[in-house]
Amino acid sequence: MLPLLTRLDHVGIACRDLDAAIERYRATFGLEVVSLEVNSEQGVREAMLQAGGPGMGYVQLLEPLSADTPVGRFLARRGEGLHHVGYGVADISAALAAIGGTGIRLLDERPRHGSMGASIAFLHPADLGGVLTELVQAAGPA
Amino acid sequence: MLPLLTRLDHVGIACRDLDAAIERYRATFGLEVVSLEVNSEQGVREAMLQAGGPGMGYVQLLEPLSADTPVGRFLARRGEGLHHVGYGVADISAALAAIGGTGIRLLDERPRHGSMGASIAFLHPADLGGVLTELVQAAGPA
Repeated sequence: MLPLLTRLDHVGIACRDLDAAIERYRATFGLEVVSLEVNSEQGVREAMLQAGGPGMGYVQLLEPLSADTPVGRFLARRGEGLHHVGYGVADISAALAAIGGTGIRLLDERPRHGSMGASIAFLHPADLGGVLTELVQAAGPA
Repeated sequence: MLPLLTRLDHVGIACRDLDAAIERYRATFGLEVVSLEVNSEQGVREAMLQAGGPGMGYVQLLEPLSADTPVGRFLARRGEGLHHVGYGVADISAALAAIGGTGIRLLDERPRHGSMGASIAFLHPADLGGVLTELVQAAGPA
């Protein structure tokens, strides 16, 4: 079964102004947006920026749609900064079953829709040393 | 010049007990330690765990050598959790010059020694939306 993870997929960064954050990453590092989406279920407007060539990981910038969302509450409590980390998995349902079986609490018992057509699920930060952790099964071939 | 970054290299995670954190990542995800080092200059004992196959990114677990270190102060202020993100660069001196030229403050004007023989440098989080950001030029061929 193990190892379950296929790659470091992305870092999720909470910001107050998505357009300003995108411009900061463009001006500082030359990163370009490859996907810009609103995810109403998660309460965010978000951009994925490629941190290198294809398959070399993403920076995900997250702006809350309102104060009363998970990212909105995170900003009120902790301010802008690193919000979560996402790891690639080949089969997210199998990964959730395996990880749940180790006693880690799953914030999502079943996969949800993530960026760029991916299937995603979050794990409870209290069981992972304070790190909000996301699993990502990319759309298409793993 | 741009884009400067070659990959999402690692996430740095602050923890109080490195051995317990390593065991958590092993038991939950099947991750194995590929490097275990003490970095006195940075005041940490640290482990690098491969988050997938070679070149697919790392989880870096950081335990402070004492309370009076950057990671020790981070733990006192924010608790365990995501501490920084590291991106690969091909030429760290050129990257520092380019990024410094955009007005981002450099915490390290010149590269320092990082994990696994890499040359590293940190950028000021206040200029990057609250994200402590590290550049990594891996040892050997880029």
